[in-house]
Amino acid sequence: MRFIDLRSDTVTVPTKAMRDAMYNAEVGDDVYADDPTVIELEAYAAELVGKEAAIFVPSGTFGNQLALLTHCRRGDEVIVGDDSHIVVHEVGASAVIAGVQLRTLNSVKGELNPLEVESKIRGEDIHFPSTGLICLENAHSNGRVISLDNMEKIYAIARKHNLPVHLDGARLFNASTYLNVPVKDVTKYCDSVMFCLSKGLCAPVGSILAGSKNFVDSARKGRKLMGGGLRQAGFLAAAGLVALREMTGRLKEDHENAKYLAEELSKIPSIKVKIDDVHIDMVFFDASEIKYDHDKLVQEFYNKGIKISPSENGEFRFLTNYWVSREDINYVIDTFKNILENK
Amino acid sequence: MRFIDLRSDTVTVPTKAMRDAMYNAEVGDDVYADDPTVIELEAYAAELVGKEAAIFVPSGTFGNQLALLTHCRRGDEVIVGDDSHIVVHEVGASAVIAGVQLRTLNSVKGELNPLEVESKIRGEDIHFPSTGLICLENAHSNGRVISLDNMEKIYAIARKHNLPVHLDGARLFNASTYLNVPVKDVTKYCDSVMFCLSKGLCAPVGSILAGSKNFVDSARKGRKLMGGGLRQAGFLAAAGLVALREMTGRLKEDHENAKYLAEELSKIPSIKVKIDDVHIDMVFFDASEIKYDHDKLVQEFYNKGIKISPSENGEFRFLTNYWVSREDINYVIDTFKNILENK
Amino acid sequence: MRFIDLRSDTVTVPTKAMRDAMYNAEVGDDVYADDPTVIELEAYAAELVGKEAAIFVPSGTFGNQLALLTHCRRGDEVIVGDDSHIVVHEVGASAVIAGVQLRTLNSVKGELNPLEVESKIRGEDIHFPSTGLICLENAHSNGRVISLDNMEKIYAIARKHNLPVHLDGARLFNASTYLNVPVKDVTKYCDSVMFCLSKGLCAPVGSILAGSKNFVDSARKGRKLMGGGLRQAGFLAAAGLVALREMTGRLKEDHENAKYLAEELSKIPSIKVKIDDVHIDMVFFDASEIKYDHDKLVQEFYNKGIKISPSENGEFRFLTNYWVSREDINYVIDTFKNILENK
Amino acid sequence: MRFIDLRSDTVTVPTKAMRDAMYNAEVGDDVYADDPTVIELEAYAAELVGKEAAIFVPSGTFGNQLALLTHCRRGDEVIVGDDSHIVVHEVGASAVIAGVQLRTLNSVKGELNPLEVESKIRGEDIHFPSTGLICLENAHSNGRVISLDNMEKIYAIARKHNLPVHLDGARLFNASTYLNVPVKDVTKYCDSVMFCLSKGLCAPVGSILAGSKNFVDSARKGRKLMGGGLRQAGFLAAAGLVALREMTGRLKEDHENAKYLAEELSKIPSIKVKIDDVHIDMVFFDASEIKYDHDKLVQEFYNKGIKISPSENGEFRFLTNYWVSREDINYVIDTFKNILENK
Repeated sequence: MRFIDLRSDTVTVPTKAMRDAMYNAEVGDDVYADDPTVIELEAYAAELVGKEAAIFVPSGTFGNQLALLTHCRRGDEVIVGDDSHIVVHEVGASAVIAGVQLRTLNSVKGELNPLEVESKIRGEDIHFPSTGLICLENAHSNGRVISLDNMEKIYAIARKHNLPVHLDGARLFNASTYLNVPVKDVTKYCDSVMFCLSKGLCAPVGSILAGSKNFVDSARKGRKLMGGGLRQAGFLAAAGLVALREMTGRLKEDHENAKYLAEELSKIPSIKVKIDDVHIDMVFFDASEIKYDHDKLVQEFYNKGIKISPSENGEFRFLTNYWVSREDINYVIDTFKNILENK
Repeated sequence: MRFIDLRSDTVTVPTKAMRDAMYNAEVGDDVYADDPTVIELEAYAAELVGKEAAIFVPSGTFGNQLALLTHCRRGDEVIVGDDSHIVVHEVGASAVIAGVQLRTLNSVKGELNPLEVESKIRGEDIHFPSTGLICLENAHSNGRVISLDNMEKIYAIARKHNLPVHLDGARLFNASTYLNVPVKDVTKYCDSVMFCLSKGLCAPVGSILAGSKNFVDSARKGRKLMGGGLRQAGFLAAAGLVALREMTGRLKEDHENAKYLAEELSKIPSIKVKIDDVHIDMVFFDASEIKYDHDKLVQEFYNKGIKISPSENGEFRFLTNYWVSREDINYVIDTFKNILENK
Repeated sequence: MRFIDLRSDTVTVPTKAMRDAMYNAEVGDDVYADDPTVIELEAYAAELVGKEAAIFVPSGTFGNQLALLTHCRRGDEVIVGDDSHIVVHEVGASAVIAGVQLRTLNSVKGELNPLEVESKIRGEDIHFPSTGLICLENAHSNGRVISLDNMEKIYAIARKHNLPVHLDGARLFNASTYLNVPVKDVTKYCDSVMFCLSKGLCAPVGSILAGSKNFVDSARKGRKLMGGGLRQAGFLAAAGLVALREMTGRLKEDHENAKYLAEELSKIPSIKVKIDDVHIDMVFFDASEIKYDHDKLVQEFYNKGIKISPSENGEFRFLTNYWVSREDINYVIDTFKNILENK
Repeated sequence: MRFIDLRSDTVTVPTKAMRDAMYNAEVGDDVYADDPTVIELEAYAAELVGKEAAIFVPSGTFGNQLALLTHCRRGDEVIVGDDSHIVVHEVGASAVIAGVQLRTLNSVKGELNPLEVESKIRGEDIHFPSTGLICLENAHSNGRVISLDNMEKIYAIARKHNLPVHLDGARLFNASTYLNVPVKDVTKYCDSVMFCLSKGLCAPVGSILAGSKNFVDSARKGRKLMGGGLRQAGFLAAAGLVALREMTGRLKEDHENAKYLAEELSKIPSIKVKIDDVHIDMVFFDASEIKYDHDKLVQEFYNKGIKISPSENGEFRFLTNYWVSREDINYVIDTFKNILENK
C-alpha cells in the first residue's frame, strides 16, 4: 500500500535520478580525501552558499554540533533561540560534545531581538564565560522564515563584537525560496551554515557544513573525532549533487501545496490553522476543539493510507513534500472531513 | 586607613568571636571524616534547613556546581532563570563539570513563571534530553526575595514530574529574614540547598550543600573529584558555626541599613534608586543622569575612604554588611553629595 | 589509470552486487524506524554475532565511542590496551564524548595480561573512579588475531567483577576466519561488539554495534545525540547485507594473499617482514635498511600504479583486499625489486 | 585519648605557630585580590620554586586538575605514569573537568622511561589527538623520590617537542630534602608545579600551583570555574606561610624516623619491608605472611592508641610526621610485637 506521508519532509525517498546517480557514482575512501564525488559535492556546495569551503556530514544534528565544537572552546557560552532545533531537538548534545553553556533567548516567531542578543554578549570579568557563538535558524522549525533584516542586524552586532554566527539552515533552500532571493543572500549573514540534502531536497542521507577554509579544516578533524569520517561516501554525495542541482528550484511547489492544504484545512469547522506561519512546507493547526480523539484520528488516517504525527498540546503538524501531490492533498482533506463526520 | 566597603557583602572579615573559635578549634583530617568541627557544622546546618544531611564546600559556586553534578547525568537539561548566579556568574561551569544543557528562562524580578517552567519539562522523545533539575535562587542576586508562593508552585510542579529542585541560597538567611519565617519554611520547597557562611554572615570561607542522605553521600565523592576534599577544614567550620549561631539573627540590621541608604540616596537629585527592590542588603541605583564621570566617582569615593564597585550600564550597586554602621552610611551620603556639588 | 591500492582495506569500493542491491533498496526514514532494509540488516547482524539487538552506525569510530558513551557514566575508568584503535586512532574522543578516563595497559602483541587487567579494576574508595568497562580488539590493528583463550580469561574476570566487555571488532570476520570458528565463538566473550561492514567486506559506509536489547535501546538515543540518526540509510544497509551474506566467506583469500605477499617480500634483501604477525590481510615490514629514500619509494610505486602509505619509523604496512589479486601482488613484488635495483 | 596516627601525613594538625599566625592574620576578599596574606603567600611560593607566579588552591587534587584544565584543550592527550596520583587517586576527574585523554605508562618505581615518553608523543594525523602535557610526580606516592636525571631527560624531550611538563609535587619538599638540593633544582625541570602546604608541612588546608605569569592568570579563571575562588583565604595562607618558612627544614626528621621505623619493622619475623623505597616519610611492608588477621590487627592497634590504615593486597603503609616522635615509634614497634606474640 502506498502511503501519503505528512509526518515530515524527512521521509522523502530519493528520486529516480538520485538512484541512477548513486548507481553510477565514482567513489573512493573519503578519509584519504580520495572520493571524487564527495570532493565535487563539497566544492559545489561551498560555491552555492558563498563560503570558502564545505564538508559533508551524516546529518543536520551532526553538522550543528560540529559547528559548536569547531567555533567554541569548552565552557564558552552560545546565544541561541529557546525554540531552535539545537536547543529542542538535539538531545542535549551541546553540553556533551562541544561542552558549551547555552544562553537560550525567547524568540518572537523564530526571530531573536537584536538588542537582547547584544545585551547577552559577555564582557571581561572573572565570573563570566566568554561568549563563543550566536546561532540562528532559517527556515525555522516552526515553519516560518525569519527576515533578512533580522539576520542582518544580528550579524552586524556579531561583527562588532568579533563573534561568529552559525546558521542552522536545515531548510535553507526553503528559506531562500520563500524570500525569493539567491541562497547566498541568506548565507552572507553568517560565518558558518549547515544545510540538509535530505528533507525537501529528497537526498537519502547527509548535510553540508560550510564556512571559511580554516573553519572547515578544523571541522574535518572534529568530524573524525565525532565518528563522521566515512569511507565511500560518494554514493551519498552523488544523490546530494542531484538534490542541489535539480531539487532546489521546485521547493515552491511544496510551499504552494502547503498553502493550499492550510486553506482547505481552515474550512473544516473547529480547526484553527496558523495560516500566517505557512511560509514553507509546514502547516500547524490547533485541533483541540474537534470532538474526536487525536490518537484515534491518527489511526483512522493510517487506515486510509495517510501517515500523520501525533498531536502535541492539541496541535498537529502536516508537511508537504515532493511525493505529496495536489490530488493527495485533496484526498487528505476529504478523508479528514469524512472521519470527523462519521465520528 | 579603615575603609567603608560597599562593594559586596563578601568582603566581610570575620568577627572576634570567629577568630577565637578558629583559634581554639578541634580539627582532624576531614577526608578521613576525622574533623569533629566539620562534622558538628554539617549536622547543625542540615538540621537548620530541615534536610537529612549536609556537606561543607569551599564556595557557593562550588556548592551549586556540585549540586548540578550530583543531581544530573551528563546531557540532562536544567531549567534555570536567565539572570541567576548559576547562569551569569559561574564562568560557564555547568557545561564543563556537570555537562548539562541549560534552559535559561526569563525571570520577572527573579521569579520564574510556574506555567513556563512546566512547559519546558521534557517528555519522552528520541530528540529530547531528559530534564534533570530545576534551579531557583533566593534571595536573588538582583537584591530581591522571591515569594514562598512562587517557590511552592514550582516545587509542586517538580514533584508532579518527579524532578528535583535545587535552591541557590547563597543569601538564604537574608531571604528568611526578609520573609520573617524560619529558614526551614523556605527550604521545604527544594530538595537540595546551597547557602554561604561568608557574605552577610561574615565567616571567612565556605558554604554548605544540604539534601537527602543519599544526595550528600554522592556529593561527597563529587566534592573529592572537584578537588574540594579538604584536610583540617575544622578551622573554617568553627567560624561557620559562629556564623550560623550568632550572625543570622542580626541580618535585619543590614537590611534596615540598606533601606536607609536607599532612602537617603533617593534624595540626591538625578539618582534613581530601585527602592522597591531593596529587600535585603543590596541597593541598586541608576546614576546615568548625574553629571559626573562614573570612574572618577569611584576614585573620589576611594580617596574619601569608601570602596564601591564600578557601575554597569549606568547602574551602581551598594551593599551594606556587618562592618557598615548607620554612621558610615551617613558619611557615605554626605561624601556623595559633596563630590557631586564640588564637581 | 587503475591503481593497485595497498594502503588499507578501507579503500575497497563496493562490488557490482552491492551497487545492484543499493539501486533496488527499499528505504524509509530510519529515525522513524521506517527503513525496512536497515531493520533487516540490524536483525541479521545481531543474529550473526549472537546478541539480542544491533544498531547501524556511520563508522567504526562512531560505534566504539557510542559503546563507551552507552556503557559508562562520565568519569568512569576504561581499561584498554595502549596500542588499541580506541586509544591511538580515535582523536581523543573518549574524553570528549563519553568523558571517561582511559587506563591504558601495555599489550603483548595485542593481548592484555588477564592478571594485570584484574589488578586495575577499582574497589570502593573515595579517591577512586569506578571501573566502567574493559575494551578488547580482535583482529587487532597490529595485524594479529588475539587468542580465544585470552578473550575467555578476561571475560571471566569481567563477569566476576560484574563489568561489561566491549569488543572493537572492526575486522571481526578476519579474526573468525583466521581462528576458523563461527563468529559467535568470538563474540561470546563480550557484552557488546562493533564491527565494520566496510574494510575487507567492501561495503561503502557503516558499522554495526550489537549487544543486549537494553544496551541497544540506550545506544539508539546516544546515536541521535552524536548526530548519527540517518534518514534513508537503507541504501547503506543494502550494501551491508551483501557484505555480511556474500563477503565474509572469502576473507581467507585476502589472508592467503597477505601471506604470499609477506613471503615474497621476505626474499627482498634488507627487508625484514614481521611474518609471524601476518594473521589477516596486513603485512608489516621494516625497510629501514634499504638504501632507498622512503618518500621517493612511495612516489615511484605511485608512478607504477601502486598506492602505498608512507613508512612510520622505518616500517611499511601493506594490506591486501578484494580488489588486489595474486597477479597484482606479483606485479607489486616485481616493481619493488625493479625500483630498488634501478636506484 | 591521644592517638599516634600513622595513616598518612595528611592527618597533621597545625602547629601552635600556625594557630597564632591564623589568629593574627590580616585578611580580605581574595576574589577581589584584596587579601594581603594570600598575596604574600603566592609571591613567596612562586619565588621559592623559581616560577613567575603562583596561585593558592584548596587541595592537591584541585591544583593538579586545574593544571590539566589550564595547559590542555579538551580532547588533548596527557602522558602520565599509571601509578601516579592523578591517575589513581583523583576520582577520574581528568576526563570530567579537563576532558583530556590519559595515556598511562608503566613506571619503574615511579620513573617513566624517557624513550617511551617520547615514543608516545603524537605527530600530525587526522586520527590523532594532540599531546597536550606530560605529568611527573616527585616525591612519588609510592614513597620514592625520582631522580633529577630522569626529570631532566624527560624535560629535555618535552622542550624538544614544545610540550609543557607539570609536576605533581604534593610532597615536593620531601623530594628536595631527600635529594639534598634546593627545591628550585627540582622544579627547574617543569613548567608548572603543584605542591601541598598540608601533609608533612602541617598547614591545615591548601596547595600552591605555580608557573609562568600567563599560566597562572589563566588558572585564576579556571579556579573560579571550579569553585575555588575563596573569600578571606588569608587564614589558610597565614598557616601556609609558616609551613613554608618553618617546616620545610625539618622534614629530614620525618625521613629519619621513617627509616628507623622501617629498620625496626624489618626485625619482626614474617614482615617484609620495602626498605629501599623508604626515601621520605612512608614505609611500605608486606605482612601477608604474618599469622594474624589484618583487620583485627588494625583494631588491636587502635585499642592501643595507634591509628593505621587497612592493608591493600597484604601490604601496609605507615607514615611518620611532625606529631610522631622517636618514642612513639618505639611504642608502635613494641605494640606490634606484643600483638603478634599474644595472638
